[in-house]
Parts: sequence; C-alpha cells; structure tokens
Amino acid sequence: MRPPKQRRDTRKLILDAALRLFNEIGEPDATTNHIAEALDISPGNLYYHFHSKQDIARALFDRFAARAGQLAAVPVTGHANVEDLWFLLHSLFEEISAYRFLFRDLHHLLRRDPALRRDFERLLERIERAIAALCRNLAGTGAMHATEREIDVLAEQLTFILTSWLGYRSLLGMPRSGGESQAPARGAHQALALAAQYFDPPGRKLLDNLAGGYLDRAWDAYNAAAL
Amino acid sequence: MRPPKQRRDTRKLILDAALRLFNEIGEPDATTNHIAEALDISPGNLYYHFHSKQDIARALFDRFAARAGQLAAVPVTGHANVEDLWFLLHSLFEEISAYRFLFRDLHHLLRRDPALRRDFERLLERIERAIAALCRNLAGTGAMHATEREIDVLAEQLTFILTSWLGYRSLLGMPRSGGESQAPARGAHQALALAAQYFDPPGRKLLDNLAGGYLDRAWDAYNAAAL
Repeated sequence: MRPPKQRRDTRKLILDAALRLFNEIGEPDATTNHIAEALDISPGNLYYHFHSKQDIARALFDRFAARAGQLAAVPVTGHANVEDLWFLLHSLFEEISAYRFLFRDLHHLLRRDPALRRDFERLLERIERAIAALCRNLAGTGAMHATEREIDVLAEQLTFILTSWLGYRSLLGMPRSGGESQAPARGAHQALALAAQYFDPPGRKLLDNLAGGYLDRAWDAYNAAAL
Repeated sequence: MRPPKQRRDTRKLILDAALRLFNEIGEPDATTNHIAEALDISPGNLYYHFHSKQDIARALFDRFAARAGQLAAVPVTGHANVEDLWFLLHSLFEEISAYRFLFRDLHHLLRRDPALRRDFERLLERIERAIAALCRNLAGTGAMHATEREIDVLAEQLTFILTSWLGYRSLLGMPRSGGESQAPARGAHQALALAAQYFDPPGRKLLDNLAGGYLDRAWDAYNAAAL
C-alpha cells in the first residue's frame, strides 16, 4: 500500500492536470484518459483516486468554492472604501479566470449533477451577500448613493456578470485557448462600470478609471502589472 | 396526399405547441411524444413534418430570429431619441421572453447543433450592431455622451444581458413555470441602468424611471400596462 503522502500528491497532480486540460479544451471534450496521459500515469491509477471525470470536476469546483468563499467571507470592518469593492470583484474574477472551465460549461456541468447545482447556488448566494454587505457599508459612509433595493439589485447583477460572462464569450465561438485573455478583463470592466453609477464623483472617477484600465490590457498583463 | 394548406396548418400547430411545452418544462425534458399528445396527433404525423426534436427547436429559433432580426433592421432615420433605445431593448426582451426556452438552455442547444451556433452568432452580431448604430445616432445628437469605444463596449454588454439573463436565472433553480414572470423585467432593468450612465441628465432620469418601472411589476403586468 502506498503511503498517504504520495496518494495526496498524486491526487493533487491529477486535479492540477485536469484543471489545465479542462480550461484548455473544455470539460466535455476532455477524457480521464487525456488526464492520465498528460501525467504519464495509468488510467487505473487515476481511477484509484477518482471514480469519474464528474468526480474530478466536482473536486475542482470544491477547490474553487473554498477560494471564492474565503474572498466572500472577509469581514467588512470599519469604513470600507471604493477600492475594497474593486478588490473583491477583481479577486473573484481572478479565481473565476483560473477555473474558467466551470463557467464556460456551467449549464452542462450543473445539468448532470444536482448536488453541484445546490452547492453552486449556495456559493452564489454567499458572493451576492458579500457584495451587498460591502455596498451597504459604502452607503453608510456616504461614498455610495443607493437604496437598499438598489444595492440588492446591483449585487444580483454583479454576481450575474461574474458568473455568466465567460460562458457568453465561449458561446460566441471564441477559441478555447489563446485569444481569450481579454475575456475576464471585459467582464471586470462591465462590473465596475455598472457599480460606478452609484458613487459620488471621486469614487465614480476612480471606478471609471479602474474600469477603463481593463480595456487597455489583456487580463494576464493587467495582473502582472497590478499585483 | 393532404392539401398543402392543411400541412402548413399542422406544421404551425406543432411549432406553437412545442414552444409552449419547451417554455414550460424546458426543451431537454420535452419529447416529440409530449408534443404529439398535446395536439392529439399521432407521432407519425409529427414526424411527417419534423424529423426530430432538434428540427423543431431549429424551426422555432428561425421564427425567433426573423422577429428579432426585424427589430434589429429598423433603420435609424433622422434624430433618434432615448425612447428609441428603450423601445428596442424592451421589444427584444419581449421576443426573448416569448422564446425563453432558447435562452434558458442555450448552451445545451448550441452544443449539439453547430449550424444553429453559427446562425445564433450572426443574429447576436446584428443585434449588437443595431444597438451600436442607435447609440451612435444618440451620441451625434448630443443626448448620449460616449466615445466610439464606449458605445461598442456598451452594445456588447447589452447584448450579453439580453442573451444570458434568463439562463442565469434558470441556473439558480428558479421554477421553470410560474414565479418567473419577473425575470425578463429584471433583465430589462439591468440593461437600462447600464445604458443610463451615458446620457445627459434628462435622458438619464427618463431611463432611470423606465428602469425602475421594471422592478415594480411582473413582466406580464408591465406589458399589459405599457403596450
């Protein structure tokens, strides 16, 4: 029997390889054989760790959900400022971009796995609540001018953009690999432009500038420059 | 051999029944037998008109595309005003709402039919161009303040909202029938709120009011009141 440490390592290697492959060619077109080949392990070894491709996709969703959940769980202490909203949205787009296969083939993945659908719904609710809580804090400081209902609607819309933008882009025949590095940036631009309208002039100018910055560079270049 | 007139009528009846059924329970869960039963015709009679469920979905898409294409083809003559933009977006949402099964299961439908995907892409390009042309006219009159690039980005974003909103809502476990009458209205609200930011104060106020109106009523009630 192999030592647990090695089992954990192989499990992680399988997930990493699957993530790369799913992002590159799409989960529906990738097979467990592809993943085993990419790692130079036997299909039997792979099946020792995961019963099916669906199991692998599920484990990758759990990894994504843990990271996105952490971002949503950051407590809003004291007075938030407009950069906090930018940072939350940017960081969420960054995670979504890293796990982009989930969002490009979301309907396909959720249709076959009702438990995944429930967990996905719960995660979206957490994200929506985190965005709304931050906006309420910003409204409390006077930086943002929005009613309770406007905040709820905005939080729903921002969560929609986060979740659906990459799927829309892939719908339009964008190549799965290459040429798509601008897609997350366009999504981030749209989210900030939508939020900007509720801010006072300095906050609005800052968000407009941040939003504009996403249009000038590819997403990877943006991250290299900004982070 | 039956007379051509009756063949055309049966074909139309099949499409109407399929549209109702697809909208109600979703195209993936509906079968040709369901459709034949709803019309009290034999499955053989249905297959005389359509080879498969996919053919029926395709014919319904063609019907939707003809209606949406007409809306997109209305020439912008003279000086447009802000109500023209509202009317275009509202009318498109109305058609999308009438053919909502296409948008709730869009990824599923396009995955299995590459020809449909191409035609769908072309239709979205036409809609995007129509929105952009109207915005450029509004920018020309001074009603809208947006650069060429801002207009292109806005037209892309509005087309994204039109196309993806109903799919997002169905993703979130919304019941397929009932309780969803507000979904198109929420989408229309989001589209108008996004566009409003580029207008001068009177246009902005008008769009904000129109956008707010969508939040107060169910979509069907809105249409009954407004049209």
